[in-house]
Amino acid sequence: MNEFDLIQGYFNWKLNDASIELGVGDDAAIFNLDPGHQLIMSTDTLVEGIHFFKDASPIDIAYKSLAVNLSDIAAMGGVAKCYTLSLTLPKLDKDWLEQFSTSLKESSERFRVNLIGGDTTRGPLNITISMMGSIEINSAIKRSGASAGDDIYVTGSLGAAALCLKKINEGVKPSESELISLNKPIPRLELGSALRNIASSCIDISDGLEQDLSHILKSSNVGAIIYSDKLPLDNSVSNYVKDSNDWSLPLCGGDDYELCFTAGKSKRKKIKELSEGLKVRVTRIGVINNQKELEIVGYNGPKSSYQHF
Amino acid sequence: MNEFDLIQGYFNWKLNDASIELGVGDDAAIFNLDPGHQLIMSTDTLVEGIHFFKDASPIDIAYKSLAVNLSDIAAMGGVAKCYTLSLTLPKLDKDWLEQFSTSLKESSERFRVNLIGGDTTRGPLNITISMMGSIEINSAIKRSGASAGDDIYVTGSLGAAALCLKKINEGVKPSESELISLNKPIPRLELGSALRNIASSCIDISDGLEQDLSHILKSSNVGAIIYSDKLPLDNSVSNYVKDSNDWSLPLCGGDDYELCFTAGKSKRKKIKELSEGLKVRVTRIGVINNQKELEIVGYNGPKSSYQHF
Repeated sequence: MNEFDLIQGYFNWKLNDASIELGVGDDAAIFNLDPGHQLIMSTDTLVEGIHFFKDASPIDIAYKSLAVNLSDIAAMGGVAKCYTLSLTLPKLDKDWLEQFSTSLKESSERFRVNLIGGDTTRGPLNITISMMGSIEINSAIKRSGASAGDDIYVTGSLGAAALCLKKINEGVKPSESELISLNKPIPRLELGSALRNIASSCIDISDGLEQDLSHILKSSNVGAIIYSDKLPLDNSVSNYVKDSNDWSLPLCGGDDYELCFTAGKSKRKKIKELSEGLKVRVTRIGVINNQKELEIVGYNGPKSSYQHF
Repeated sequence: MNEFDLIQGYFNWKLNDASIELGVGDDAAIFNLDPGHQLIMSTDTLVEGIHFFKDASPIDIAYKSLAVNLSDIAAMGGVAKCYTLSLTLPKLDKDWLEQFSTSLKESSERFRVNLIGGDTTRGPLNITISMMGSIEINSAIKRSGASAGDDIYVTGSLGAAALCLKKINEGVKPSESELISLNKPIPRLELGSALRNIASSCIDISDGLEQDLSHILKSSNVGAIIYSDKLPLDNSVSNYVKDSNDWSLPLCGGDDYELCFTAGKSKRKKIKELSEGLKVRVTRIGVINNQKELEIVGYNGPKSSYQHF
């Protein structure tokens, strides 16, 4: 099978977005932006043995490759539109490709994004997706907009993906819901988009709350105080923290793909309404200040969020 | 060094394009398209041991990673704008990173494109660039526009990169100019852009003329006849063909990154003027017909252009 047949066989799906003029199958894809909109673009790579285990299901790999990229678009407040896929495969495994392709197609339909191009190469398994979204001019939520006095919020709950990973690494079987936290993070696209003109800054939590909130603080040139006892935890993480008094999983664990955002106090009612309307848990965990550092009340452990190198 | 420091240290360069609102350092980049323009986007990956040798210079790897992506934008007739870089590295080698970064920055300045984001991960060396360009609405040169009677052209000369690779694989030292053909292909951006509204179809030759021209034929639902004795060859390839009577290098060798395009006969004068004005060799090698296949006069050897799997 040559590259052309591989792409035609597994990755040339019908487009369902009229703004895409040309998708898979030429030197480049072509698409149009709505008037008054800007393009937002992000890239994330998943590598075997780093971001997923060697025997991971192609179904999970495809879902997560897409979800982590969608999460970046959500963190900007954008609407995800289309993406390219660069797939480096050690061999031509038709069964693997069939499962990967089916999962990616289903996930793309679920989140209403279209695959418009990419590259397939031979080599150690590596999946890179470049996601494009659009947003009305001047309404993207950047990391740099937090001000002293703003509330700090996180979506969903924290630490379950890290707990799952910890259990797997220790040879303990994780629960079904912990596996879902690790393998099927939900990009907060609707909430992110609804937070435009409400949130003052936003980031998605991929490397751990402590590290990712610190990026907001650095970009915004502010500090913050957060309270460990306010962190939203699901039952398993809550029990783990009670038993071990180890807050590092919800504070420094990666792979949550929840949003951490800031907003002025006047927005509390609106944010509560959004949370209820979109059925996404949103928890206020602290406040921005002028101290230029991150104080975590109730936690004295090491600050060791995920380091790539 | 964490990912944040790595990016800040090696890849956060000053932007020189006012249409980019936000570059490296947030969840996603933001940029604006000029009114009346469409976005074109392409992705190409280079993998160690497949696209370059294990001991390849990071200077060459950076240049080529950018050039092969620019070549795709050139083949659409677009103007290259900005790109994301996803860099998977086996280890943090500061010397390697310094050389890679310097070369990528210089190449970006040369071709007037800006790095706006990306991802760095740990794993077997893999470089994926996603390149964005813009083009006036309805003026992209697709693979699907060739018609019977159109002339077929190629830029530059063919086969030198394949000859270089062949020599290296056989333990023969290639010449300096052959090494340049392999490591420093020149994306034909100016010519590609000038061919809008002149060329009826275009592709860049990455996998070999025979295979890539066949993509035009398939997309356009036409056939073609080309003449091996009309292929533009530099001296070393010409000598090799004379000695061996083996036309497979210029016909099926990959890595040329020249453009293959078609145009109606009425455009001959204009194309000659463009070639002279832009100082890019352009050679007419055959003609499109209705036969639905590619006939190569003067060649009976195997058609074995590069296969990715």
